[in-house]
Amino acid sequence: MGSLHECENKSVSPVKPLDAEEFRRQGHLIIDFIADYYKNAEKYPVRSQVEPGYLRKRLPESAPYNPEPIETILQDVEQHIVPGITHWQSPNYFAYFPSSGSTAAFLGEMLSTGFNVVGFNWISSPAATELENIVMDWLGEMLKLPKSFLFSGNGGGVIQGTTCEAILSTLTAARDQILRKIGRENIGKLVVYGSDQTHSALQKAAHIAGIDLKNVRAIMTLKSTAFCLSADSLQATIKSDIEDGLVPLFLCATIGTTGIAAVDPLQPLCEVAKRYGIWVHIDAAYAGSACICPEFRHFLDGIENADSFSFNAHKWLFTNLDCCCLWVKNPNALIKSLSTNPEYLRNKASDTKKVVDYKDWQITLSRRFRALKLWLVLRSHGVHNLRNFLRSHVKMAKHFEELVRRDKRFEVVVPRNFSMVCFKVSASSALFKHENDDEKVQKSNEASETLLETINASGKACMSHAIVGGKYVIRFAVGASLTEEKHVVGAWKVVQQHLDAILSSNPM
Amino acid sequence: MGSLHECENKSVSPVKPLDAEEFRRQGHLIIDFIADYYKNAEKYPVRSQVEPGYLRKRLPESAPYNPEPIETILQDVEQHIVPGITHWQSPNYFAYFPSSGSTAAFLGEMLSTGFNVVGFNWISSPAATELENIVMDWLGEMLKLPKSFLFSGNGGGVIQGTTCEAILSTLTAARDQILRKIGRENIGKLVVYGSDQTHSALQKAAHIAGIDLKNVRAIMTLKSTAFCLSADSLQATIKSDIEDGLVPLFLCATIGTTGIAAVDPLQPLCEVAKRYGIWVHIDAAYAGSACICPEFRHFLDGIENADSFSFNAHKWLFTNLDCCCLWVKNPNALIKSLSTNPEYLRNKASDTKKVVDYKDWQITLSRRFRALKLWLVLRSHGVHNLRNFLRSHVKMAKHFEELVRRDKRFEVVVPRNFSMVCFKVSASSALFKHENDDEKVQKSNEASETLLETINASGKACMSHAIVGGKYVIRFAVGASLTEEKHVVGAWKVVQQHLDAILSSNPM
Repeated sequence: MGSLHECENKSVSPVKPLDAEEFRRQGHLIIDFIADYYKNAEKYPVRSQVEPGYLRKRLPESAPYNPEPIETILQDVEQHIVPGITHWQSPNYFAYFPSSGSTAAFLGEMLSTGFNVVGFNWISSPAATELENIVMDWLGEMLKLPKSFLFSGNGGGVIQGTTCEAILSTLTAARDQILRKIGRENIGKLVVYGSDQTHSALQKAAHIAGIDLKNVRAIMTLKSTAFCLSADSLQATIKSDIEDGLVPLFLCATIGTTGIAAVDPLQPLCEVAKRYGIWVHIDAAYAGSACICPEFRHFLDGIENADSFSFNAHKWLFTNLDCCCLWVKNPNALIKSLSTNPEYLRNKASDTKKVVDYKDWQITLSRRFRALKLWLVLRSHGVHNLRNFLRSHVKMAKHFEELVRRDKRFEVVVPRNFSMVCFKVSASSALFKHENDDEKVQKSNEASETLLETINASGKACMSHAIVGGKYVIRFAVGASLTEEKHVVGAWKVVQQHLDAILSSNPM
Repeated sequence: MGSLHECENKSVSPVKPLDAEEFRRQGHLIIDFIADYYKNAEKYPVRSQVEPGYLRKRLPESAPYNPEPIETILQDVEQHIVPGITHWQSPNYFAYFPSSGSTAAFLGEMLSTGFNVVGFNWISSPAATELENIVMDWLGEMLKLPKSFLFSGNGGGVIQGTTCEAILSTLTAARDQILRKIGRENIGKLVVYGSDQTHSALQKAAHIAGIDLKNVRAIMTLKSTAFCLSADSLQATIKSDIEDGLVPLFLCATIGTTGIAAVDPLQPLCEVAKRYGIWVHIDAAYAGSACICPEFRHFLDGIENADSFSFNAHKWLFTNLDCCCLWVKNPNALIKSLSTNPEYLRNKASDTKKVVDYKDWQITLSRRFRALKLWLVLRSHGVHNLRNFLRSHVKMAKHFEELVRRDKRFEVVVPRNFSMVCFKVSASSALFKHENDDEKVQKSNEASETLLETINASGKACMSHAIVGGKYVIRFAVGASLTEEKHVVGAWKVVQQHLDAILSSNPM
């Protein structure tokens, strides 16, 4: 080792990667670029129309040796990047769950990117930690979380990137709590519970945390109970596992499942879990936002017996990606599992234990100042308007649902929850009158799949799908920030027109 | 269950969270705010001067019910947030490792935030995946990575948030590879290797992945070998573990350790690891950037026998947080461990297996379009200027090192690598001439700690510390984008003045 070879002879040009005036000039350019993008968002095909490998044909093989002006780069963004974007911000975007951006969140993200602090502990930027403490209490209060989840009640909230991280963090904490009691050689006995509708994040987190995948239970749900996880099934599964010498560890209950926005009944589930000392995490990734409206809050009844709760403000609370809000009743459980205290991060404030060091509440050490964008969202809109934004989406979804019901060729597959309508070409429609029952289901599934693909290929609207109870379901999720009533009505026309076209070219 | 209670009666106000013209107006305001912040960055105390709990006293207890104008919010940012910021972008910031922002990365982040796509798989926004493929190949080529790490050589790169995620992802892949052979009941036998200088991310990742912490080896390093991990020590440790019936799994070798920027010798380490079938990950979080300069590239010699390599462009490659670049030789190992294929994400493009679905290369499902900022950084500066930026930082650090050496009260503790100088009040300085040898060390450590604390408390410059070989070391890392020669010279004066002040108030 020793000191390094340096090239003293090489010319060192003056370095100004962050010149304030150049920043100003270029920053204004991009603001206009993005404002124009939003103005024109409707004009782009919603789902990108490119073919795999399109971009490599258009870009150079290597990074440029010399600098290029921002104007050239922006031209390339317009010509080469925008066509490869699936426009989640389009008013005609109804796929997956929304990724609802807002001006307020964008500005908060700019401030965060501008300060560019690495807020792993309190001293690394006290404002980053303290603002996060405060907004998480604000938001917890808006959701009427039990006080035990708030800092003011000795719990606390943390902003993570995604639900996957929130589940992995809490699952690791739960795992360690129990392994401390039963010995870590028993890790192979731990069992994790969810339903067949639970997000794949649970399985992935369990796998990463060393839980045997054969001990991850995806308990079957039924159409008759709207695909919710039944407390009786949970109890039976737990009992059977215990009889087999296994150790129940963790339940992930969902408010608003990914497939069809089903809502697991927290009260009875938490009661069962409590009986067996199981950590309950509530994943309300999408639907949690709605619970700031009093009329939806009842879905969280029973939460007082849960251990942790998370939802993604980046889905349906107008906060640009990423912003997963996680609350825990017992921060020490997280800290015991996830803290590291290398000497180079030691500091007086942390030594007093009077401050929060968020590095010990999450998987990663470094973290962005995400609280700024959430703070701006809450302040720029206020609780009143945020509620009304959400209500307007629910209202639009309700309208869409009515439109579906009026067309006998379609069926609404499960009762609409929140702002998502699950529909399909109906097996009992006259289209399939000559088929037997099995064929009706199969043909209506195929028709629904073809319909979705042609809609998405048209670029006029974008939706996604799920399969529940053997049915192929088209998911229509209202929530893009630019969506208005006319877009929902327009999307329904697109659906009808595409079915008409399919039928005329290939009568069933 | 069933449909939800809705409040049809409540007034629903027109919703415009993303009005293009309002976006434009407010966006320009914030650009000017941040440009002014950079212009004045020097004027703020570098380390925040606030006390724990300062912010809760200044902000309301709850979120506002009604909206507030951006102008009011910006005033609050200035008055309440900025004082709580430790200014990582200040030209007088030399703590930890740099968080080097740039205009180019900022603009890329704006575009990413503006498009706000959730790029979990190819179809969700082809440009997000394909641009990431391309820039990771560009950057890999700039680093002269072996072709086997690039997409063009059947390896590939992925942008993750942090090194913690990169290590957890690769460690999980390595774990599963071996458990498939030896059976998962043997998870308790797996051993992970690093040195006593390895980042705590290794220990944390191992713990999360279910590796027994008593099987995480922090092999002792010595001053005589510049605190590098010795291949002989590694070999001896592995042998002893195998004799004890354990199973060697994973080695994390570091290029530029966090404490003192030590460089582990890759060539012999990889040879030892290869002999035992151990997965080698190279963590070059800080120093990886320097390896784009030909004169530093030799530190990566031997990488051809490693399995994965990561560095943080958000540390020292002018890319705002977060941007950890990870390359692997065998993407399938990652995919086998981390893929999930829920029905609602199934799509034709993925079914062909001809596209990359990055969700299977990382811990999380959702992911931001981070490639944009890296692309803008590479294009806006070009390889030539990026190299020269890095060289200018190294040159400034070298100058600082010379200044330290000229003042006999100080010593440079380890040879400077890259842009970081590790120094302290010298135990052999005349200040401690009346003490015995043990006291000299202790008193010089105490003096160094006091010195660092007073410097940071002054707000004039910010540095951090490490303890190596029993010595308290002040770490002076050059790399903030606004830092110029005059700031380095000024920081040295601050160091001297503070030692003068300590000595005059409390002669040693």
